[in-house]
Amino acid sequence: MKQINGGVCAAQGFTAAGVHCGIRKNKTKRDLALIFSDVPASAAAVYTTNLVKGAPLLLNQQHLQNGRAQAIICNSGNANTCNADGLEIAAQTAALTAQALGIEKEDVLVASTGVIGLPLSIEPFVTGVPLAAAALSADGCDAAAEGIMTTDTVKKEVAVEFELDGKPVRIGGIAKGSGMIHPNMATMLVFITTDAAISPAMLQKALSADIAETFNMISIDGDTSTNDMVTVLANGRAGNPEITAEGTAFTAFMQALNTVNVQLCRMIAGDGEGATKLLECSVTGAQDLAAAKAVAKSVICSSLLKAAMFGADANWGRVLCAIGYSGAPVDVSKVAVSFRSAAGEILVCKNGAGVEFSEERAKEILLEKEIEIVVALGDGAAAATAWGCDLTYDYVRINGDYRT
Amino acid sequence: MKQINGGVCAAQGFTAAGVHCGIRKNKTKRDLALIFSDVPASAAAVYTTNLVKGAPLLLNQQHLQNGRAQAIICNSGNANTCNADGLEIAAQTAALTAQALGIEKEDVLVASTGVIGLPLSIEPFVTGVPLAAAALSADGCDAAAEGIMTTDTVKKEVAVEFELDGKPVRIGGIAKGSGMIHPNMATMLVFITTDAAISPAMLQKALSADIAETFNMISIDGDTSTNDMVTVLANGRAGNPEITAEGTAFTAFMQALNTVNVQLCRMIAGDGEGATKLLECSVTGAQDLAAAKAVAKSVICSSLLKAAMFGADANWGRVLCAIGYSGAPVDVSKVAVSFRSAAGEILVCKNGAGVEFSEERAKEILLEKEIEIVVALGDGAAAATAWGCDLTYDYVRINGDYRT
Repeated sequence: MKQINGGVCAAQGFTAAGVHCGIRKNKTKRDLALIFSDVPASAAAVYTTNLVKGAPLLLNQQHLQNGRAQAIICNSGNANTCNADGLEIAAQTAALTAQALGIEKEDVLVASTGVIGLPLSIEPFVTGVPLAAAALSADGCDAAAEGIMTTDTVKKEVAVEFELDGKPVRIGGIAKGSGMIHPNMATMLVFITTDAAISPAMLQKALSADIAETFNMISIDGDTSTNDMVTVLANGRAGNPEITAEGTAFTAFMQALNTVNVQLCRMIAGDGEGATKLLECSVTGAQDLAAAKAVAKSVICSSLLKAAMFGADANWGRVLCAIGYSGAPVDVSKVAVSFRSAAGEILVCKNGAGVEFSEERAKEILLEKEIEIVVALGDGAAAATAWGCDLTYDYVRINGDYRT
Repeated sequence: MKQINGGVCAAQGFTAAGVHCGIRKNKTKRDLALIFSDVPASAAAVYTTNLVKGAPLLLNQQHLQNGRAQAIICNSGNANTCNADGLEIAAQTAALTAQALGIEKEDVLVASTGVIGLPLSIEPFVTGVPLAAAALSADGCDAAAEGIMTTDTVKKEVAVEFELDGKPVRIGGIAKGSGMIHPNMATMLVFITTDAAISPAMLQKALSADIAETFNMISIDGDTSTNDMVTVLANGRAGNPEITAEGTAFTAFMQALNTVNVQLCRMIAGDGEGATKLLECSVTGAQDLAAAKAVAKSVICSSLLKAAMFGADANWGRVLCAIGYSGAPVDVSKVAVSFRSAAGEILVCKNGAGVEFSEERAKEILLEKEIEIVVALGDGAAAATAWGCDLTYDYVRINGDYRT
C-alpha cells in the first residue's frame, strides 16, 4: 500500500469542486463542496447516534436504502438542524444537484455543517450548485476539502493505492471536524471514495466495522454532534472482481480503508478546536477490546489531563483517575503509564503507583506536538488506541462566541 | 426550617478546627481540618465509584462498618492516592487523631484531597494533629472549611435548624470541590454534622437517597475524582426520639438534609475551577426521573454550552445537541428551551426548533452570575435539576499547571 495524492479524486472516475455560494458572508471562504462519480457507486454511511439529527441525515437514510449513490453535496456555515423546514431544504438541495448533474435525486447525498438552529435558505444553492457542478474536476479535492471546513484550521485529505486481485485500487477521503467531536457509532463529516468494486452490503460492513476502531475513538470535547456522518462511495472503476463476501480481497480493502481512516482521525484530533497538540492514548494488556477502548477513550476525554498536556505537565495522576472512572474492569495495582513523543519516552507510573522520574525530561517530551500516552494494564491481551487533543485557552475563545 | 450560622459546629456537641501543618508550603494556608463530636455519633458515608480510590476511603470503609464515628480528620494539598504506602499513612493519621482526642481509632474518619500520586509523609500529622485537637472550638468551622480547600476560591458552609418531634434540631455542613467534579454515586468532600438522633441505617438511607438528587447532579469538568466522599455524623444531642424507621420525622430530616446539600451543591458548582457563572439546568416534562436527570446532567456537562455561557452567547443549539446525546428517550419535536436569570427569562426554542428572539435581551440575561437553563420536554411528569459552571480561560490556566 502506498500513500498518493488526490484525496477524494484519487480514485478513478471521481471529480470534486468547492465554491463560495453565499451561506457564509466571507466571500473568500468556499462554503459548498460537491463530489461526483461518473458512474453510480455502491454507497454506505454511518450516522450520529444523537437523537437530534441534522435534516440532511434523515434524507440520506432514505436515499441510501438502495445502497447506491453518485454525488455528495455539502455546505458549511449552517448545520440545517432544528429547523422546521430542514428536510424540505435538504430535499430541494438534492433535487438541484441531481438536475445540475443529470442524475436521479435519490442518488444524491446531502450534508450540512455549521451552526445549529439557524434557518437555511435554498437561495445560495440555486446559484451555487450549478457553479459547483461546472467546476467539477479531477483536481478539485482541495477546493472541496476547504468547502466543508468550519472551525477547522487545516484541510484534511488522504489517499492510498493498493491491489485487489492484481488490479490497482485507490481509496481516498476528506474530512472536517474540529469541535463537537465525540463520535458514538458515527462521526463528523467524512467523505471517502474508492474505485474498488464492492457490493453495497460488504461496503457497509467494512465501514461499520472500521469506524468502531477509528472515528469512534476520537474525542475533542465530549460533545456528540447532531450532524456526524461518514460515507463512502465505491464506483468499481478499478475493475477488480466485485467483493461480495469476506475473504482476502475484503481484508485487503479493510486494511486500506483503515489506513485512510486512521490518518483522517489523527488529522481531526490534531486540529481540534484550539488544540496545540495531538494526543494518542494507546492501551495494551486489557481483559477485552471493550475494556481497552473504554480506558483509551476515557483518558483522552479527561478535561483535566487535556489541560495538563497543554501545560506540558506530567500529571499522570489524572491518567490514573480517568482509567479508574472509565467503567472498564481494571486491576489498578498492575497499571503502568508512560509519556512518549518524538523527544523520547518516560515511565511515570508502575504497579499503580508513581515512580521517580525527571520532571525536566518529562517536560521535554511533553513539549512536542504529538504526545502518546502509553497505558499498560497488565491484565490481558486486548489493545486499543484513541485520539484527542489538549484543552487550551483558544478552545474557550472559539466556543465562547462561536455564533457572532 | 431556618438558615443559621455555624456550619459543622451548628449542631450541639460538635467542634472543629483548621490549622497549618506543613503539607502545603504556603504557611498562611490551613491544610488540616478536624471535626469532633463530644459523643460517638451515628455515621454514614458515600464514596466515589472511581476504581482508583484514595487510600483514606479504603480505611473509612473499614472504620464505618459499625455505623459509628466521632471525628473526621482531613488534609488538603495531597490526595494520598496511588501511593504504595497510602493505606498505612491513613491508618497512622487515624491513630494519631484518636490518641490526641482520647477516642478509638476506629471512630476516626480520614480524608485527603490534592495532588494524586505524590507520596504523603506522616510527619506533618505528628505535629499538626495535636495542634488541631488543641484548637477545637465551637467557632472553628471557618478554619476547618479553609483547611480542606484546594483550588476552591470560597469557603463552603451552611446550616439549618428545624424541628423533630418538638425538639429543635440542627444540621450543617462544609464542602470542598472545584475541579475533578463529576460525581457518580458519591462526590467531592462534604462533611455534614447534625445533633439529630437517628440510627446509622436510617442515616445511611437518608444520605444515599439524597445525594442522588444533589451531589450526583453536579459536574464541573466531567472528571470523577478518586477521593470523593460525603459523610454525615449524627450525635443525637438534640434529644429527639431516635429515628429508626421511615415516617414523619425521617421525612423532615430528609428535607433538612436536602436543603443543606442543595446549597452546598450550588456553592461547589458556582466555585468550579475558573468559573464565572453558576449554571443550573432544570428539566421538566420527562418520561421518568432517569430521563430527566440524564438530560439535565448532559446539558450542564457540555463543554460547548459551558464555553457559550462564558461568552454570554444564547447558543441554544448546543442545549438541543446535549439533550439529543443524553441517552434519554426524548421527542425532540416537543422540546422547549428558555434561559432565565435575575435579569429575566427568554424563550429560544419551541417544538424542537428555534423561535425569533432578541439577541440583545438574551445577552442581558446571560451576563448575570447565575443562569438557569430551563428545558421543558413536554413528554411526561418527571423533573430534575443539575448544577454546573461555565468553561473559561482560567479553567485551562489552573489545570495547565496544577502541580507546579
